[in-house]
Amino acid sequence: MRIALYGATGYAGMEALRIMLQRTDLEIVWIGSDTHAGHPLAEVCAQFRGASIASLRYSAMRTLEEPPDADVALLALPHGEAHRHAPGLLARGIRVVDFSGDYRLPPALYEQWYKRPAGPVETPAVYGLPEVFRADIRSARLVANPGCHATAAELALLPLAEKGWLDGQRVTVDAKSGVSGAGRSPQLTTHFVEIDGNFTAYRVGQHQHTPEIEQTLAQASRRRRRASDDASAMSGASMATDAASSGRQDDGAVKILLTTQLMPVTRGIYATAYAPAPPDMNTDALYELYRNRYENEAFVDVLPPGQIPELRNVTGTNLCQIGLFVDDRTRTILVTAALDNLGKGAAGQALQNVNIMSDLPDDYGLTATARR
Amino acid sequence: MRIALYGATGYAGMEALRIMLQRTDLEIVWIGSDTHAGHPLAEVCAQFRGASIASLRYSAMRTLEEPPDADVALLALPHGEAHRHAPGLLARGIRVVDFSGDYRLPPALYEQWYKRPAGPVETPAVYGLPEVFRADIRSARLVANPGCHATAAELALLPLAEKGWLDGQRVTVDAKSGVSGAGRSPQLTTHFVEIDGNFTAYRVGQHQHTPEIEQTLAQASRRRRRASDDASAMSGASMATDAASSGRQDDGAVKILLTTQLMPVTRGIYATAYAPAPPDMNTDALYELYRNRYENEAFVDVLPPGQIPELRNVTGTNLCQIGLFVDDRTRTILVTAALDNLGKGAAGQALQNVNIMSDLPDDYGLTATARR
Amino acid sequence: MRIALYGATGYAGMEALRIMLQRTDLEIVWIGSDTHAGHPLAEVCAQFRGASIASLRYSAMRTLEEPPDADVALLALPHGEAHRHAPGLLARGIRVVDFSGDYRLPPALYEQWYKRPAGPVETPAVYGLPEVFRADIRSARLVANPGCHATAAELALLPLAEKGWLDGQRVTVDAKSGVSGAGRSPQLTTHFVEIDGNFTAYRVGQHQHTPEIEQTLAQASRRRRRASDDASAMSGASMATDAASSGRQDDGAVKILLTTQLMPVTRGIYATAYAPAPPDMNTDALYELYRNRYENEAFVDVLPPGQIPELRNVTGTNLCQIGLFVDDRTRTILVTAALDNLGKGAAGQALQNVNIMSDLPDDYGLTATARR
Amino acid sequence: MRIALYGATGYAGMEALRIMLQRTDLEIVWIGSDTHAGHPLAEVCAQFRGASIASLRYSAMRTLEEPPDADVALLALPHGEAHRHAPGLLARGIRVVDFSGDYRLPPALYEQWYKRPAGPVETPAVYGLPEVFRADIRSARLVANPGCHATAAELALLPLAEKGWLDGQRVTVDAKSGVSGAGRSPQLTTHFVEIDGNFTAYRVGQHQHTPEIEQTLAQASRRRRRASDDASAMSGASMATDAASSGRQDDGAVKILLTTQLMPVTRGIYATAYAPAPPDMNTDALYELYRNRYENEAFVDVLPPGQIPELRNVTGTNLCQIGLFVDDRTRTILVTAALDNLGKGAAGQALQNVNIMSDLPDDYGLTATARR
Repeated sequence: MRIALYGATGYAGMEALRIMLQRTDLEIVWIGSDTHAGHPLAEVCAQFRGASIASLRYSAMRTLEEPPDADVALLALPHGEAHRHAPGLLARGIRVVDFSGDYRLPPALYEQWYKRPAGPVETPAVYGLPEVFRADIRSARLVANPGCHATAAELALLPLAEKGWLDGQRVTVDAKSGVSGAGRSPQLTTHFVEIDGNFTAYRVGQHQHTPEIEQTLAQASRRRRRASDDASAMSGASMATDAASSGRQDDGAVKILLTTQLMPVTRGIYATAYAPAPPDMNTDALYELYRNRYENEAFVDVLPPGQIPELRNVTGTNLCQIGLFVDDRTRTILVTAALDNLGKGAAGQALQNVNIMSDLPDDYGLTATARR
Repeated sequence: MRIALYGATGYAGMEALRIMLQRTDLEIVWIGSDTHAGHPLAEVCAQFRGASIASLRYSAMRTLEEPPDADVALLALPHGEAHRHAPGLLARGIRVVDFSGDYRLPPALYEQWYKRPAGPVETPAVYGLPEVFRADIRSARLVANPGCHATAAELALLPLAEKGWLDGQRVTVDAKSGVSGAGRSPQLTTHFVEIDGNFTAYRVGQHQHTPEIEQTLAQASRRRRRASDDASAMSGASMATDAASSGRQDDGAVKILLTTQLMPVTRGIYATAYAPAPPDMNTDALYELYRNRYENEAFVDVLPPGQIPELRNVTGTNLCQIGLFVDDRTRTILVTAALDNLGKGAAGQALQNVNIMSDLPDDYGLTATARR
Repeated sequence: MRIALYGATGYAGMEALRIMLQRTDLEIVWIGSDTHAGHPLAEVCAQFRGASIASLRYSAMRTLEEPPDADVALLALPHGEAHRHAPGLLARGIRVVDFSGDYRLPPALYEQWYKRPAGPVETPAVYGLPEVFRADIRSARLVANPGCHATAAELALLPLAEKGWLDGQRVTVDAKSGVSGAGRSPQLTTHFVEIDGNFTAYRVGQHQHTPEIEQTLAQASRRRRRASDDASAMSGASMATDAASSGRQDDGAVKILLTTQLMPVTRGIYATAYAPAPPDMNTDALYELYRNRYENEAFVDVLPPGQIPELRNVTGTNLCQIGLFVDDRTRTILVTAALDNLGKGAAGQALQNVNIMSDLPDDYGLTATARR
Repeated sequence: MRIALYGATGYAGMEALRIMLQRTDLEIVWIGSDTHAGHPLAEVCAQFRGASIASLRYSAMRTLEEPPDADVALLALPHGEAHRHAPGLLARGIRVVDFSGDYRLPPALYEQWYKRPAGPVETPAVYGLPEVFRADIRSARLVANPGCHATAAELALLPLAEKGWLDGQRVTVDAKSGVSGAGRSPQLTTHFVEIDGNFTAYRVGQHQHTPEIEQTLAQASRRRRRASDDASAMSGASMATDAASSGRQDDGAVKILLTTQLMPVTRGIYATAYAPAPPDMNTDALYELYRNRYENEAFVDVLPPGQIPELRNVTGTNLCQIGLFVDDRTRTILVTAALDNLGKGAAGQALQNVNIMSDLPDDYGLTATARR
């Protein structure tokens, strides 16, 4: 498989390179960077001095006349840039996995939350969350790789949404992210001195991953009801065990308040999600629900009751670790999800998607465990 | 004023020393440590080599036959230790400010949450949150200095509780604390390598500061209703503007889910509280409410709409910085409170209480600003 | 005393503000910033929201028509900027303490090491290392505040230079500095992600503090020989106890190799200096030498044999802590000096100089101890 | 190949596991831990929850009756423990790679520097620095894996020692290490709060890696002279180009002052070595010397003149990155070496040795590049 990597000097792009360099079945044929065009990889990123492609030179992206000769293109670019490159690649038959938000939302939502014009949408994109859309990813031409906060929140809440328990509820996701999520271009807000010993919320209530999470969870909820309707039609049985069953007048919409906060670590998302607990729900039952939901998923690790995710157990890996707790005093479900924003939150998930698109096992080349 | 400091080698004790050493009106006459008894201060804590009391020797606490000759004793000891020392001190007429949880709760609640027997309660303790109990603190013999998480959560939610808006609601406090809050005795969980790059929740739903927060907020709510009843009696007026007015059948109880999480910084509490928004409440109105509530408080800094607390702005100080946001999409009030767990969360607040007990201005000797 | 502060938004400028805000005898009448001109202090630096001068507005420096009305101006500006402002201030009779390298070296050396044209030198500057030049500082109109690396290296080596033991020797200073020393303007090299878990040397053998250190140590050596000549003339006695006595053909020049390295902390210089040990010198004797040399200095803390400086014991203070060791196996003197690059390495030392210029005790307002 | 790992819960042991788990040709058949005997791997080390050996249980080491059935045993134990286990393993024909200092020194030196009795030395150990002793390692039964500081200092100085340039000279190694090097058992000195923002020297002039470095460099020097004598015998030619040639009366001894310092990072050694420069030596010539010396070494990366090692480029890898500079002003050679103390400084190098012992390429399974 021949891979072209757009945006090879950002943190997500470098992580994609690092992972791919451990594989022998992938050939990295082209790396794109406007700033460093013409320079060899290892001159710009000294960590790759010993790599097989150390002397591969960056190509300019802006002035590109025709796409590189590749089977798959990974676009690890800022929002707004994928729209410029994806159509040409797709027209050439090159499959695209886009790391940005450009193809994750319908145009109206995109423009509302990203405050920029949406691009053309000739090729329909598949949302690249394998735990929900694996079948569609397999044959996709264009995959919209999920956002890092979105991946954590969605995996944390998906089993609840599929039960309909989030419909019409006040759901809160208190999320903390590492600094690499803020990108590599120097700003005062990512200066070491400003981050060291600090912790701060940002873009409170306005983070652009919010609609992406709501969309995925609403789809999960609708899917459930459709399945439920089908089942009812077939069997005539009632669905009384599902808390959010028929009587609801709402349309399955899930509303999320996403609080994003910057913590002084390089990598990681640690999201704590809060939702009302249905009657009789307890931690053990919740664990059963999640364990069943994710038992065939290589990268979702549901911890038994009493165990709590730690960020360092997922750093450098493609894992999402999930912890569960039902607080009886306030009747609240608390779900904690930990992942690496550059791993399962970006490059790792992109390569998981490439595996699926190539009929390889999800975890091919992605089995690294966390270091201490 | 002559001060005795019990537990002078822990992080809170050292912080109390650091603050007091900048004052000329306080004389530190006695420092207690069982581990280091007989050794001079600066030999054990090299940061005090140049201090006036560098050669003051630690005294053993366990074998103490009679209390030190002091006006005020600060007890910076682990839970369970204050019960052993406070009665003797009080009997001698020495006023006590206790940093631990020993005197914050009624015995039954203490035993339930601290999993240890409650001590004797001959002298009633005043809960040392000046923003609520200043009048009582002034004449108190025994002050129970609030917990670090509790101070943050209470200051964040107090104006809402006083309006009755928390009564019977599901309220969540997602709190993050620095490692110094875990104490100084070496454990694997505070090893640098285990904390660096890590983030983890702990004691989920079971943190012992929970009942303390609920108790303070319930008192605030009751106080409001009492005032409201008085007002009604006097004027016959209705209190329709208060959302939680008469019709409620609950008893003013406030239930909190407190999620405590360890972040890789030395100092700080960063608490994000979530509560349902009353109809028509918006960020501007919330700001007015908080600004009015805290306008005479030296150490509660309510940020205008759009500004967000940063931990580093309170580190090393006695400040609690508060940020406000009403999320219209989910009708949620989000209040963020940042403070230094060793400052306003422990030693700083203790010295604020000493000031109040001595008829000094609250901020005497506590005006340091945060450094970068 | 009325103070004007040029460059009030950099790390050294903010530290000067932080220290001065604890004093009641200083009035900060003017703060300069080109980027933030017109905005109030606390809007730009939120840590000063509660300060008395929170609403003082920055003034532009570039377009300044006449100097602010002050007694002393502190110039916390990048190299090359002081040359623009100092002459006008001095002409008005305002005393100047300059934090930059602009006035530390003769023009030729300045141009060689700073790679920029030297400025005018109408007013002779006094080098602001109180431990050597206190008498001159007292009456100085213009003080060149020493560099952070220079202060550490000079205090580490001064007693050796004054003995003549460094003349003609190979002396090495392996210095590590915190990131705040690299300034506040965002660069990739100070991005949190690039610093976290990293350690790297920079400007090896070419750091501009090198000639400043050599100049100060050479002056110390010459001073000794002059004193020695005077003594000889008076008494006719030989100076055989001094290793580097008369026979030397060199001219007292001291040559230093300074290795500067960036460590992942916000503040601090930790310098380890290596020099050949004279015969019979051992750790105890070295300690006696240093203790005697610095016994009247408030801010040089010479640790007894066996104790080793720790950076955290000086952070946030104006202290320089010194540790000593003579390695008998290699006959090497090892001197370790730790200080805060923003404290004794910049703003603290500047205010120590202001104290001296004002006939105040050196440590007035500078007695803070380090926190944990 | 069947591997037994003694000391599987320390940082070096866990790193060996992490590396081995990416290989399919190794079978980890036994893991030893006295503290956690009987418990499954992933229960104790949650980062291995998804690993193939997640449920492998730790075996007790102290009460072991006979060695595990393995081809190679890795001993990742504290000093003094290897002496207890190695003889039994060797007697069974199991090859041993020992991470500790137990087999690196002759008994007298061991007892002098380690302050403990030396163990039995029935089987001669080969010092496991492949860059010097690869041929001996290939057939070794017992490999003494080098210390982390020692590996850095030796690779930094080896080419100079082989030229004889270090004989009789004052050589200094200013070394900084990450906290994982201090081991995993909790101590106050490795508490996060005590390390965060701190930097400190320790065991100055007394670090037990000192004699190991001197021994390796002296062997390199002797080897050169032997080669030189052989060459002279054969050709009668003089070796005048070597600075330290025949006339020297010393016996090739190299004396090192090793300064060890703790930096606030989890992993890494950053060593700066200083030695006198021979006449006419300059940076370019030094680069040629090192490049030639290491050109066939997979894990020694000699940077071209002007480039400086960064710790983060070797973290998580088996690389040692070397930077070179000749300071003409002081005629000093400065060599910087950066490596990961758990990688090339422990587990990585151990597995490199296992590869050599198994006739595999040195870099088999060790090609990971550093992440950001």
